[in-house]
Amino acid sequence: MNSECVFCRIVAGELPSCKVYEDDDTLAFMDIGPIVRGHTLVIPKTHMDPLTAAPAEVLQKLILVVQSIARAQVRAFKADGFNVMQSNGRAAGQVVPHLHFHVIPRFAGDGHHWNWRAHPYEKPEEMNALAQQIKAALAD
Amino acid sequence: MNSECVFCRIVAGELPSCKVYEDDDTLAFMDIGPIVRGHTLVIPKTHMDPLTAAPAEVLQKLILVVQSIARAQVRAFKADGFNVMQSNGRAAGQVVPHLHFHVIPRFAGDGHHWNWRAHPYEKPEEMNALAQQIKAALAD
Repeated sequence: MNSECVFCRIVAGELPSCKVYEDDDTLAFMDIGPIVRGHTLVIPKTHMDPLTAAPAEVLQKLILVVQSIARAQVRAFKADGFNVMQSNGRAAGQVVPHLHFHVIPRFAGDGHHWNWRAHPYEKPEEMNALAQQIKAALAD
Repeated sequence: MNSECVFCRIVAGELPSCKVYEDDDTLAFMDIGPIVRGHTLVIPKTHMDPLTAAPAEVLQKLILVVQSIARAQVRAFKADGFNVMQSNGRAAGQVVPHLHFHVIPRFAGDGHHWNWRAHPYEKPEEMNALAQQIKAALAD
């Protein structure tokens, strides 16, 4: 436990939360500042961050809980869809530095729009060069 | 294979893509309309959609490839962070109806900002009632 971490303190019961699911390793609870009503967070009980630092078995458990929560949201709210969102680092918009997945139910006309500004590559060479860098780093 | 699906056609080699990783089950390739340079997509080769319909073993493989790609992006580009984003349904902003994860490298000052508009619950009773609905659907 990281005593300065809000999510660790929720896991420890030192701070309140509205839980929807819990097992030995994982906790799911309501986001108090939802993007859309019903927005839920899924976290490992053990403090870790970012996603790149998580053990494989932790991620593999988390993604199944994410799936279960999404299924339950769709069923409970008759949602038209959902987003799974996960941020790492301040530059990515992360606020609480404890690994978490947002599971956000979505509805036609729910008023939320991701500002998805695609910037197509002007030259395919640029994209190819970046891909080569990723491939090289994967092989490291 | 779904012959009307752009991602299935990429998997089949009928449409071009800039690949960064491939195994028997999974493909990772560059998004041609990146939010931020280096933006990569991770998909199962088999057509499926949405995330709620995916077999556990498929999701568990995908999330590990997502992690590998994120690690490679951070290493290759010295990224300050990254987002993992996944959309299901038009209401959620999904464009191609074949399960996919966006892995987006992020940099301080990269110019992208998620329009993260939190709408805190005015009454805790509302949040509690929604949580109860999710719990009930999980138990179904």
